[in-house]
Parts: sequence; structure tokens; C-alpha cells
Amino acid sequence: MAAHQNFIPSNNSYASSFDKGHLPLPPSKQLIVVSCMDARLEPASQLGIGLGEAHVIRNAGGSAKEALRSIVISQRLLGTREVAVFHHTDCGMLTFTNEHLRDKVKSEAPGNAVVAEAVDKIDFLTFPHLEESVKDDVKFLKDSPLVLQDTTITGWVYDVTTGKAKQVV
Amino acid sequence: MAAHQNFIPSNNSYASSFDKGHLPLPPSKQLIVVSCMDARLEPASQLGIGLGEAHVIRNAGGSAKEALRSIVISQRLLGTREVAVFHHTDCGMLTFTNEHLRDKVKSEAPGNAVVAEAVDKIDFLTFPHLEESVKDDVKFLKDSPLVLQDTTITGWVYDVTTGKAKQVV
Repeated sequence: MAAHQNFIPSNNSYASSFDKGHLPLPPSKQLIVVSCMDARLEPASQLGIGLGEAHVIRNAGGSAKEALRSIVISQRLLGTREVAVFHHTDCGMLTFTNEHLRDKVKSEAPGNAVVAEAVDKIDFLTFPHLEESVKDDVKFLKDSPLVLQDTTITGWVYDVTTGKAKQVV
Repeated sequence: MAAHQNFIPSNNSYASSFDKGHLPLPPSKQLIVVSCMDARLEPASQLGIGLGEAHVIRNAGGSAKEALRSIVISQRLLGTREVAVFHHTDCGMLTFTNEHLRDKVKSEAPGNAVVAEAVDKIDFLTFPHLEESVKDDVKFLKDSPLVLQDTTITGWVYDVTTGKAKQVV
């Protein structure tokens, strides 16, 4: 069974007790969390963020570089003034390189020039060290001419085996 | 008070009852959800997805195009075979254009050529129609040479005033 076949019954249950239909578009805590897509993360509950309080941006590795488009929209149009970079232990991004994944994709479509060209264009934004990846992303945001000067930027690591978060920047 | 000052007390509470430290890296439902950063979304609870079950990618608008890097990593290295595009009513992406936001950013840093050059490089990936944005993103994924052929791809709209989700593709 495809996972989406469970969406409507689950959502009916969610909607039956839903009482947050009044929440406005701008996040009430003026906060952005940039985190990984990892299935073991749920940044809101792990950091105590309620519905309507923060923008949550998630991608492979929690890349602030890829998040920049969203951050500019969030800050300039919706008033956010704080960013938390929230990475985690056992991250898949520590386990491969651009060359590794490009070779794998090409080997799964042998001789397919369209696939090869498409995958060679992607920088997968891997990183070799977890805490450094957080520090690098915080620095990237602090140095960006598009991030507002008065933004509070912090960096965190979440441990997927203990559920504990610690601040590293 | 900055929002991050509440992270550690909240996380201590979360970690004190945490019993999911055994979950593996690959998502157990082989599912990816691509959704918006909007503060009123929490795709996991709104769609009945548990910790460890799905990759969750979120960015301004829930753009599948921007999510492609993450989707390739998810499918090729972590075994996902299903993607749900999950957009929502009252989305900020319906309210502006590239030109509007670029002009706003430039007007906030008058004469700053670095800012102007940086913002002109960003395509903010806005869209004028909600359901069409879901259909367009599903089509983009179905047409992508980098998305696996046997992927189940569906598209959804969530209503932020009622808590209800409906399938549109």
C-alpha cells in the first residue's frame, strides 16, 4: 500500500480537533529553523515550537545555502529576525561525495546522456564534519548580503539516539 | 527574548520521554513529503506520519524544483519510492513576484550593488495559482530524468483555516 493512502483518514482525525484556523501568515516568534529532511527529525516538537510560531525549512543536510531563497522571503515579507541552524548526528550527508552519488546515478542509467548531464549539474552539498557544517552554515548566513544585519543566528546539533539538542554556535 | 533561549528547556522535556533512539536512517514508509516552510504547517501530524517514517523537505512554497537535490539523495541512497507534494491555502508565494521582492530588497539597501547583484540572481519561484502549483510540481517530478520511474507521486492542498487536506493529483 502506498503511504499516501493513509493521508485522508489520518487528516480527518487531525482536522476533527483542529482549532488553529485563526493563525496569521507571519510566524509569531519571528523565527526560522533550517534543518535536515531526515525522518528522525521533527524540529518543532524537539525545540518546543508551536503551530504558527516559526518558518521551518528542511532539505538534505539542512543547507543554509539552499535555504537562502526562502530566508529572504521570510525576512523581507514576513518579518522573521532569528535563524536557528539545526543539524543532527548520523546525517546521511556525512557518508558520500558528489562524485560518489553522480557515479551511482549514472551507473543506474548506463549510457543515458540526459541523466548524466542532469546529475552532473547538481552540487549535493555534502559535508565531511557535522559541527563544522553547522558553523559553516551560520557563517554563510552572517556573511550573506541578503540576510538582515540585526538577525540573531544560532547553530545546533541534535542527537538522534538521545533526543537531546546542544548549541554549537 | 530570542526564541532560541527556550530551545534547551523545551528540548530537555522532549528528551526526557524520548524512546526512539533506535530508528534507522532510511525512512520506513519510503516516503518523501515536499511542503512549504509556512508556520501553520506541520506535515507529519497533518498527514499522520510518525517519527522515522518519511523525509520531509520544506521551503518557501514547497517547490519540487528546489527539492530535487534532496529527492535524488533520498531515492538513490535511502530507498524512498513515493513523493507527496503538499501545498496550502493562503500561501505567501501567491502574493508577490520576483520583480516585487527584488525591488523591495534593493530599496532597503539603496545604492548597494552587492545586494542588488545577489538578489537579482535569485528566482523566488513564486506562483499565481495554488492548485496549478501542485500540478506543476508533480509534473516536474514525473518529467525529471533524475526521479526514479517507479515513483508514486501525488499532490495535495491543505486548508490552513480548517486543518483539512485534499488530493488534487
